[in-house]
Order: sequence, then C-alpha cells, then structure tokens
Amino acid sequence: MALNVAEKLITSHLVSGTMAPGEEIALKIDQTLTQDATGTMVMLELEALGLDRTQAEVSVQYVDHNLLQGDEKNAEDHDFLRSACQRFGIWFSKPGNGVSHPTHMQRFGVPGKSLVGSDSHTPAAGSLGMLAMGVGGIEVATAVVGRPVSIRMPEIWGVRLSGELPPWVSAKDVVLEMLRRHSVKGGVGRIIEYYGPGLAGLTAMDRHVIANMGAELGATTTVFPSDERVHEFLRSEQREDDFVEILADEGADYDIDEQIDLSSLEPLIALPSAPDNVVPVSEVAGQPVEQVVIGSSANPGLRDFAIVAAILKGRQAHAGVSLDINPTSRPILQDLMKMGSALDLIASGARLHQSGCLGCIGMGQAPAVGRNSLRTMPRNFPGRSGTNEDSVYLCSPETGAAAALTGVITDPRELPEKAGIDYPELRLPAVATVDVAMLEAPLAPEEARGVELVRGSNIVSLPEFDELADHIHAPVLLKVGDDISTDTIMPAGARVLPYRSNIPRIADFVYDQLDSTYSERAKEVREESGHILVGGSNYGQGSSREHAVIAPRFLGLRAVIAISYARIHWQNLANFGVLALEFADADDYERLQQGDVLELEGVREAIAHGHEMTARNTSREESYRLIHRLSDRQVDMVLAGGLIPWLRDHEQ
Amino acid sequence: MALNVAEKLITSHLVSGTMAPGEEIALKIDQTLTQDATGTMVMLELEALGLDRTQAEVSVQYVDHNLLQGDEKNAEDHDFLRSACQRFGIWFSKPGNGVSHPTHMQRFGVPGKSLVGSDSHTPAAGSLGMLAMGVGGIEVATAVVGRPVSIRMPEIWGVRLSGELPPWVSAKDVVLEMLRRHSVKGGVGRIIEYYGPGLAGLTAMDRHVIANMGAELGATTTVFPSDERVHEFLRSEQREDDFVEILADEGADYDIDEQIDLSSLEPLIALPSAPDNVVPVSEVAGQPVEQVVIGSSANPGLRDFAIVAAILKGRQAHAGVSLDINPTSRPILQDLMKMGSALDLIASGARLHQSGCLGCIGMGQAPAVGRNSLRTMPRNFPGRSGTNEDSVYLCSPETGAAAALTGVITDPRELPEKAGIDYPELRLPAVATVDVAMLEAPLAPEEARGVELVRGSNIVSLPEFDELADHIHAPVLLKVGDDISTDTIMPAGARVLPYRSNIPRIADFVYDQLDSTYSERAKEVREESGHILVGGSNYGQGSSREHAVIAPRFLGLRAVIAISYARIHWQNLANFGVLALEFADADDYERLQQGDVLELEGVREAIAHGHEMTARNTSREESYRLIHRLSDRQVDMVLAGGLIPWLRDHEQ
Repeated sequence: MALNVAEKLITSHLVSGTMAPGEEIALKIDQTLTQDATGTMVMLELEALGLDRTQAEVSVQYVDHNLLQGDEKNAEDHDFLRSACQRFGIWFSKPGNGVSHPTHMQRFGVPGKSLVGSDSHTPAAGSLGMLAMGVGGIEVATAVVGRPVSIRMPEIWGVRLSGELPPWVSAKDVVLEMLRRHSVKGGVGRIIEYYGPGLAGLTAMDRHVIANMGAELGATTTVFPSDERVHEFLRSEQREDDFVEILADEGADYDIDEQIDLSSLEPLIALPSAPDNVVPVSEVAGQPVEQVVIGSSANPGLRDFAIVAAILKGRQAHAGVSLDINPTSRPILQDLMKMGSALDLIASGARLHQSGCLGCIGMGQAPAVGRNSLRTMPRNFPGRSGTNEDSVYLCSPETGAAAALTGVITDPRELPEKAGIDYPELRLPAVATVDVAMLEAPLAPEEARGVELVRGSNIVSLPEFDELADHIHAPVLLKVGDDISTDTIMPAGARVLPYRSNIPRIADFVYDQLDSTYSERAKEVREESGHILVGGSNYGQGSSREHAVIAPRFLGLRAVIAISYARIHWQNLANFGVLALEFADADDYERLQQGDVLELEGVREAIAHGHEMTARNTSREESYRLIHRLSDRQVDMVLAGGLIPWLRDHEQ
Repeated sequence: MALNVAEKLITSHLVSGTMAPGEEIALKIDQTLTQDATGTMVMLELEALGLDRTQAEVSVQYVDHNLLQGDEKNAEDHDFLRSACQRFGIWFSKPGNGVSHPTHMQRFGVPGKSLVGSDSHTPAAGSLGMLAMGVGGIEVATAVVGRPVSIRMPEIWGVRLSGELPPWVSAKDVVLEMLRRHSVKGGVGRIIEYYGPGLAGLTAMDRHVIANMGAELGATTTVFPSDERVHEFLRSEQREDDFVEILADEGADYDIDEQIDLSSLEPLIALPSAPDNVVPVSEVAGQPVEQVVIGSSANPGLRDFAIVAAILKGRQAHAGVSLDINPTSRPILQDLMKMGSALDLIASGARLHQSGCLGCIGMGQAPAVGRNSLRTMPRNFPGRSGTNEDSVYLCSPETGAAAALTGVITDPRELPEKAGIDYPELRLPAVATVDVAMLEAPLAPEEARGVELVRGSNIVSLPEFDELADHIHAPVLLKVGDDISTDTIMPAGARVLPYRSNIPRIADFVYDQLDSTYSERAKEVREESGHILVGGSNYGQGSSREHAVIAPRFLGLRAVIAISYARIHWQNLANFGVLALEFADADDYERLQQGDVLELEGVREAIAHGHEMTARNTSREESYRLIHRLSDRQVDMVLAGGLIPWLRDHEQ
C-alpha cells in the first residue's frame, strides 16, 4: 500500500492500535521537549513518578518563556530546572539561549523521529519530516519515563502546494491563508501534510513557520517530507549525517484534499483577536500602528530577521512605532551580527531584546490599550499580549517591516513604488553558526544520581487529587462560549506566568480576565460539592498548558460539559481526572445556565461501561444526555484520579 | 581670588545668595533631564503649573526605566511622555534609545552648563565640567518653568588624584575606594571635585563612572575640570565646538582635602547590601556567583563593555552563571557591533538585552534568593534588585568578567596566571557612532500648542494637598533606623514601578518591604489625624524619587522626625509640604517609640519665626525639642502646602 509521509511516520512508531481515523493508537516517542513555563510542572511530575533517568533518546528542557525575572521566582525556576535536568539526564538550554522549537530543529531535529513537547507549537519540527506533537506536560513525562503516548488516529489532510511565492509574500502568508480558509477549528483531529511542486521553493525554516502555526488550526500536527531542502538545512547546521529521506510513496493519497497555488497568494494579516480572523493586508491598510514585534517560533529563521533588516537598511522606523526585535537564538543572533543585519536593525531604530519568547507569551512588550501592535507571532488571543483590550495583528516579517517604516498598516508590495524599496534578495550564509555552549549536556548516570533538586520557595509539589467521585452534585460556576482558549482559562503574561511552579497560587488567576470571581466562588464550594464548567465548541484551544486543567482541578473542578474540545486540552482533562463530557444534543448548551446545579449519579459505573450518562438539572428539572469519548485507557486513568496515579499503578 | 572648578560653576550660575557653606543659594539652570519613572510626575506637575513651553536651554525626557511592559501601563506612560514632550518643547528619547546619563553626556553635555535632573545620578555630567544635580521632580519642573533652583551652598571637597591605575583596576574602583573610606554619608553637604595629575589617565567616560556614583556618597554633586580629555571626548562625539576649557585657578583651594594614589588601588567590591560595604575583591574570592550583570549608568562607556568582551573573547561564561549585558545606548551598541565585541559577548554565552536601566532598578534580571549577583551598577540596597533577601555585589567590569568566567568571585589580577589572560589593550574607535534617530526634537511652538496630552487610564493627575496644619496631633506610625533609602520607603521594581504615574495606587506599596501594614494603618488615620514617621540618620538616602514623599503625603504624612536627612529627600519633603524635623538631642530618638502619639502646637507660627519647636509625647508624658533647617523660602513653601501652590502664587 502506498503511504503518505504521515502514515510512514506513524507506522514506524506504532506500538498498538490501527491507523483508522478516530481509533486510539499508542506511539513510541523518541524525543521530548519541555519549556520552562510547562517544564517545572513536568519535572515535579517526574519526581512524583520516581524517575531515575529519561528513557527517551533525547530529552531537552528549554528556558525561553520566563526570562523577565521581575522577582526571584523566574531565577529560582531556572535553578530548579537545571538541577532537575542534571538529575534526570536531560539537556538544559540555558535562559537566553533561544526559543525551543527552532533551537530543537537546528540541534536535535532528525527526520523520521517522533517528538512530544509540552508546548503546542511542537509540531514545528514537522518541517524536517518528524512526527512532532504538542501534548500536556504529564504526557511528556509519560514519554520521558519510557511509555508510549496515545492519541486518536487523525485523518490525514493533504495540502498540495504549487507555484512559487511572489515577491513580498512569504511562508507566514501560506499558513495565514490556511487559517483564512479553515478557521481555528479546521485542523482538529487531523494531520496536515504538505506536498507537491511548490515545496521546492520553501526552505526547511519556511516550513517551520507553516508547521508551527498548524497549531492555530487545531491540527494534531503538520508534516512535511524530508527532501533535498531538509538535506540542505541539516548540511548548513553541520549535521548532514542525520539526514534521512522520507517522501510519500508514489500514488499515496489523503483522507482530505486541498490545494494552494503559492503564486496566487498575497500578504495576509490576522486581525484582533484570533489567528483565523484573516484578511488581505490591503483591506486594512492605513490603520495606525504603534508597535511592530519581529520574532517568536512562528517566524524564527535567520531570513525572517534579515529580510526586515534589508528592508529597513539605511532607513528609520517611524517615530511613533516601537520596533521590537526578539532574536530567536544566540546562533541566529550571531549570524545576524556577522551579516551586518543586526547593526542595520539597531541603526534603523530597533529595540534588540534577548533571545526568547518574550511578548509572544505576554512576558513584556505589552502594548497600550487599543493601540495596534503588528507581530510576526502565532497568536493574538485577547489579552495574551499582557494588555487587556489589546489590539494585536499577526503578519509576516515583510508586512511588519512595512508598517514599521510607515507607521500604518501597509501592503509591503507598495514599498517599491511608495518608498523606492525593491524586494531584497538575501544572501544567507551557506553554513549556519553552530554554538552549543549554552546547551548543557546530560550528566553521566552515576553523577546524575548524586544531584539534589534545587527548590525555591515558589516551587510547590503537585497537589494530590482524589479518585473520580461516583456522585457529582455541583453547580455550574461558569458558562463560556465557543473557542475559549487556554490563555483565557489560565492566563500567562508577566503577572501570572511566574507562578507556573505553584498550583495553589496560580489557581487564583484561573479565568481572571473573564470572571475574576470564579476562583473565589470555586473555593467556597470546593470541599462541599466541587463545581462544573460549561463550554461551547472547540473548548480549550491554543496553548498546551496543563495548568489550565490542574489549577481548576485544584479549585474543585469535577467535570466540564462542552459542545466540543480542542485536542490537547481534552487530553489534559483526562490526564488529571476531570470528566470531559459533551452534549449529545448541542441545543442543550442553550438550556443550561450558569448557576444551575447538576446531579450526575453512578458516574464511575457509567463511564466504565458506556459512553453515555445523564445529568439532571436540579435547578430547572431538566435532564441532558451527555457523552464522553474517552478510550478504555483513559477511562481507567480518570477512574484512578489521573495519569500520575495510573502510571504509578502500572509501573509496579 | 583663585577659584576651584566648583566655585567657577556656581559663580557663573548664581542668582542669589553667597557662597558660604550652609547658606541657601539660588542657581540658574541651563538644562533639565527627566527619566520616565520620575518624568510622568514632572509632566503632570508642569500641566498643573500651566506651562506653555520649557524655559530651559535644553530639556530632555528619557525613557530608560520602565521598559519591561508587563502590561499596558508602561506603553501608556511612553505615549503620555511623548505627547507631553511635544506639547512642552522637550526632547524625547524613545524607549530603547538608551540610559539617560551617558546619553545626555554624549549628546547634550556642555562644559560650564548647569543641569538638574529628576534622577539622583544626574551628577554624572560633572564628568564634563558641568554643574549637574539630582533633585526631586518638582524642582526639575521649577527649572523647566524658568525659575532658579535653590540649594544649600555645599563645602567643596578636593580629591587630588595622582599616579596611574594598575592593570585590572578601573574607574569603578576609584569611587568604590571613596565609598570604602567615607561611607554613604561622607559626601552629604559637599561637592566632590577631582583634580591633580592622576586625571590625565581617566577618560571623560571614566570620570562619568566616578561622578555618577558620587551620588552614593550623598554628595550634592561631583565635578571634574573640562580639560584635554573632555575635549577629546567631545571631538569623538562630533561636538568639538561645544568644548570650553574649565580648570581650577592656580592656587585654588578646597574646604576639605583628600588624596588618592591611583597606582595603589586594587580591585574592590561592595558587599550586600550597601554601596559603602566595600572590601578588596581578594577578601571574598571564591564565593559562588550565579549572575553577572554588565551595564547601567555606573559603567556605561564603550570600554566598560569592550573590556568584558575582550576578557571573554573565545572563552565561555561559567555554566552556572547568567551573564546579562545591558548595553547603555543604541550608539554604544552599534560601536560594540562594529568592533566585534557584541559578537564576542554573545559567543561567550551572554544574554544581550535592550538598552536601558533594567536590573539596576529592579526591572527584570532579579536573582534567586540568597544567590550572589555581581553587577557593575551603582546601588545594592536590600531588595532593589526585585528580590527580597537578595545578595547583590557592586564591582568593576573587570571583576564582573572574572566572575563570569570562573563562576566564583575572582580577583581579576589572577586571570593572567590562572586563565592565561593578559589585561586586554583596547583599541576603541576615535570617532563614536552618533545616531540621534530615536531622539525626537521639540516641535515648533505653534505646532506644540496644538498637541493634546495622551493619557492612559493609569495616568492620574497629582492629588491636591492641604496647607500645613497649625496643630498636629498624630501617631508615630513607623519608626525606622539609620540610612533608610528611598528604595525602602517607596520600592521600585517590576511590581511597583509601573504605578509611578498613579499616586493613589502606588501609595499602597509605601514601606511595603519593611512593614506591609503601614499604608493600611496610615489610611485608617488619614482623615482624623494624619501620621508622623520617625527616622534615624541619613534618612531618605539614594534615589531622588519624589514618590517617596508624595505617596506617604497622600497617606496623611504630616511630619518626619529624624536624626538627619539625605539632601534630595529632605528637599522633596519641603517641596510637598511635609515638615522635616530633627531631634535637637539625638538621644530622644531612643526614647520615642513607634505607636506613641505626638502633639505639636502652633506649628505654623513656630516655623515662620524660628527654627525650634516642641513635641509633646502624649503616650509617655515626655517632650522633645525639635529643630528644622528650612530656609525662609522653604518655610513659605511648606506653609503654602508645597512648591506647586507656592509657584502658582509666585507666577501671578
């Protein structure tokens, strides 16, 4: 049978299950990635699981999120993570070394390998022909302890690329076009596989841009073939030996088919405040701009900065614009310096920041209320920038540079005529700077065993949670709408992110922007009844942060009832023993009101032996039919109170 | 009569008074400097005073403190400041352009001119033979509206420098030696004037280091002659025409004499947590170091970064150290890039940050609790780093580089033997990069009058305060010890600094670290009685922030009684109508207890007609004789309720 690339990658890692869409399959995981905002929790989980040493081929902990160090908490997390890496045989990428996804691709990416990461943009490694998935931290921990990771077999969505991108249009516009067509729910339950003649014009780093933001489509992951462009990339990274060609078999087909003619694309922009709110740049041209930020894992390549430098070279950013440059990593910054691009950027009025995620996760760079900020980043959910009532747009580096120059949203294709700027031809170095000095290699096992974890006062062990109750009789404390992101459930940003290692404290911020009374109200009924949340469709989209489950769970969350779920959040709910239920009849969503009290009886029995149960609304004497989509494995896990107790039982 | 440099500068600006130490003199002010953390308040004051356009020759507003932008407040302050500069004819240095003091020196510094700045390190411009003083924001506003600024005529303290600095010893060690000898109170009521043959070996930027940290000695200011090294500096900044030679007259003498033989100095370091806690580096060698920060106005010159780059070139920072580089300004960063030093720093494992004050004012870069952080910055007061229980050392770039390499405190003189590193000979460019693109020039008057101030929701007009009460009957809400800094009274850092434009909100943080109940307790008695603070000696040292007066005043502070005061804070108290009293008998400090209730009767009459009054302690039936040192002008001002109502009266 002719296999596509996604099927080849799954076949080569399949531990159990069959590749029928919707079936649960278990996959062997070769590599793991954690970043600091989710990684401290993973390390605490590994400690709770009694790990001696990672069982993955490669495990890497990056520090790229919590770099501001407004007080001691960030620095103490860094110390904790470094000690945990030393203890568990994990690579440690020091604060300031770089953003996880591009750094992982450059130093550890190997075509054909599988990777799970506690960051939703982990699929970026699909650019090299890897099977790379964002999962909750506890599932990374599962892979680290050497167990397979289970997912629902996705449909494979083939996107055939033809033609060549016109001048002033780049990879970001390709994925914005996908979001324009298919929305943030378009990829749910799917792997996106790009193929076709258009690929030849996309470098591995261009593909990273597209694979990275596949997360915004809700896709399980994105894959590209490992072809000559990947070979070229690995050669430039001085790792040619790691190249393996992985192409779709002749005659391979896809569950869903899609076509994009690259030559037909134009500069696109996602308007506030959703990544799928996409229109042509020309439609919103002329709007004033107060900030342009270049950086993040969504546009991480040397070319993404060099193109901005080349456009701005010898010119000045507009006086009313703050032009913020977040270099992806030390090696990329070094290349920018060697090329003279860094100097061109500074001379044009840029603020050059340390390497890291920074404003992408609301760690600094927050704009003024209502003032337009254009960013090459992947997400613009409300408030994610750190500013409530923000106005954040997502665009390509070219579109960002044009706005930086003019002070208004500008179609970059107008720069030749309006500013006398031709589309720059970049001459990038054939060999990239390779610098692993801030990547600490794992200690030898005997040395590692002597390492004590360094624990600051903000690093609090994971709370223990009860088994699933058989009888739930609890109020609906909050009812929310469609497409609620994990940024809304558990905000990030400079105020909250430093508490990522401290569940009791971070729980105070759950749903803070939407309803600041939620956590207090939850605490009031925590002991007596716990509570229930009601969501619309695509509940829990966005970031993979499991804090969006653990913290509400800590506050007494017993069940979520939604129209549908985003994949990672749904898995996280099961992993921490929270029942994720769906309305059998979506119309019931309208009937059920915030404040209603629901009663679910015989819950354990119901989920163990079927996929349905009934909730009685004791406030209005109605009943709703609810279903769950948990696999047998997940049912066991939820009954046990979550993955940690389940793993403990199964290790013995 | 033979005059020294300080006397020449004062003579040429004297509006009233005589140069007898202790007499109040009024000085014409040529230039003003504000930074953002104090500048928003200055702009609000200028608005309250009804200013049309600055009357100073040059007024410059820098944005260097609040750069983190954790939420919308910083960006909204930047917008407000930019609009106020446009309205009032003030230069605007954009966020990320650079640190105020070195940038001011490079672009606006002119020998012989006077300068006041709402930043305690303003004396740095004394490096060019300017009369430069740190004052409260309202006094900068006074200068902006064209009125003279009054000070007590200081004693002139001549420090004769001889010899040459040995290898591995640099300007920072000179001022640390001064602090070692004389403590943070040593310069109170004095101007320090450096002279002698040793000056020839100190560049203008070296002198900036020494003049900058004269603030840590409590000095009114520091001055250097304007000699050939100043000429050379202005030539390199392409402003040779601004050079004026200013030397002490033959036979000039000083009120106090001091000598330093530069060749006898060794690397010094200030231990936690005071700038005068100075010992030779060799005494504490071997202590582990977790962070090294290079930057700030205390070591701002190109050479201060280039020397670190040269020491680290081709080597790696220790794995356990975070090496943070805060480039002073865009032009200096450009020169570091042109020299290749920036690349050397990155390659050695540095985190390169945007240009600004950053960790110096606790805006990021906070270390872990109890972990040693070595900084080339000017201050290490407890908690100023953003971390309570921090452990911050102050040192030269050479000492910082040595620790970054070895991971422990290391006398840099050991590097040749221990690490095979010879003291680098730097080849700095003869002509510095000049780049004014992020310095917005004032608008023309007619255009300026059309500008509306852009006011975010956190920008709150200055509260109006009552006249001084004639009868004070109020409790001592807090009694503190010696050398309390304004960092303790009104903390800075990432948590508090964003509220600098919002007195009602920032008042919640007054004395937060020392006694978190203070502001609540003050509010409880605000309407009924107000309250009194009791301090030891050198009360209010450090930063010039007038928030350390305005916020307690907002909370009902009526009087401070201390053993003695730091100059700027004492002036700020008068400027906002708070009575600054001293114990006539310092032993009474011991008798008076926190919680005691004091009664002062006929206060207005007493300060109008004399310098003494009596406080009756109604809690223990004792009385204390108190004195004030207010000038007649200040008495008027305090009676009027502060400088703003006083200026309003005197403008009419």
